[in-house]
Amino acid sequence: MTPSLEKLVNSFASLPGIGRKSAARLAYRVIEMSEDEVKTFVSSIVEAKKSVHLCSVCQAYSEDDVCSVCSNEHRSLDTIIVVEDNKALEAIEETHEYNGKYHVLHGVISPVDGIGPEQLKIKELLHRLDDNVNEVIIATNPSVEGEATAMYLGRLIKPFEKKVTRLAYGLPVGGTLEYADSVTLMKAIEGRTEV
Amino acid sequence: MTPSLEKLVNSFASLPGIGRKSAARLAYRVIEMSEDEVKTFVSSIVEAKKSVHLCSVCQAYSEDDVCSVCSNEHRSLDTIIVVEDNKALEAIEETHEYNGKYHVLHGVISPVDGIGPEQLKIKELLHRLDDNVNEVIIATNPSVEGEATAMYLGRLIKPFEKKVTRLAYGLPVGGTLEYADSVTLMKAIEGRTEV
Repeated sequence: MTPSLEKLVNSFASLPGIGRKSAARLAYRVIEMSEDEVKTFVSSIVEAKKSVHLCSVCQAYSEDDVCSVCSNEHRSLDTIIVVEDNKALEAIEETHEYNGKYHVLHGVISPVDGIGPEQLKIKELLHRLDDNVNEVIIATNPSVEGEATAMYLGRLIKPFEKKVTRLAYGLPVGGTLEYADSVTLMKAIEGRTEV
Repeated sequence: MTPSLEKLVNSFASLPGIGRKSAARLAYRVIEMSEDEVKTFVSSIVEAKKSVHLCSVCQAYSEDDVCSVCSNEHRSLDTIIVVEDNKALEAIEETHEYNGKYHVLHGVISPVDGIGPEQLKIKELLHRLDDNVNEVIIATNPSVEGEATAMYLGRLIKPFEKKVTRLAYGLPVGGTLEYADSVTLMKAIEGRTEV
């Protein structure tokens, strides 16, 4: 492999979820591209990096000072869903069932990785808890760190006298008890609802 | 998702083996990169595309006019292994067992995809069949197209009075008969050797 191909493979391999074999395949694809295709690819990277910033309100990725959700007057100010990252926000948006606002933390508290509350967008969240807000739904991932961050936020928001909730644990729709892990199954029993 | 993020996701998703979910993950990673990381990434793409060309002898990717294998005087001129692409060449090089030369076709004959012999580097292969060459090993992939291309090349090279061989079919080392598909198993029986 030539030196510049090697460098390109290293670049691709440093991206999440790309192993060396995939990185080599991507690098060869780049060499096979036309000059124009390479230009389009490169400019899409440069443009995205240049134009995408954090929404000054909810901290989601946005190309304007205020993102499309925050600036949408048809969305209720009543509820804020707090998520770890933009991927989670997109997943909730895709349900087309939520009409409130969001707040993106950009991570979770993780002492092992040296990430404390001050590195997350928590201060920005507290600033938003005005009279319009009635409920904060904490939708961090169902991991140890997500759970700890949810507990931490719960205590922090309490003095503001807002309802603080957490997403339900339970069986995934379409799943079977047979393949549910025992922690999930226990949570599903604990969280059982009347029929 | 913002327009420029959307464009970047489309760029990544157009690469081989990258679905939309992975493309979105890669796009978000780019946004999280520092300015310097983005610069390094982009320049590795531009540099590779700019400096990598085809070796004028074997048609492998090279940054010089003649690649490192072709210009290596310690490698035998006796044998040429013909491969579909650079990935196959790299795979053979990684065995560290082959000391001859290569020739890269850059594809296989595939009427369905509109690829005929004239689009492959076959003319360049025939030009290389001088007195130094004794054997041409055709190492196209064991697919219908790879097989057809091997047959085609075999007929084409015959008049040059060189030995033309094809890689052996058989059981993969470490495999079990139980999991071998029946075509491979049949080929392994046909190609049986005395012990």
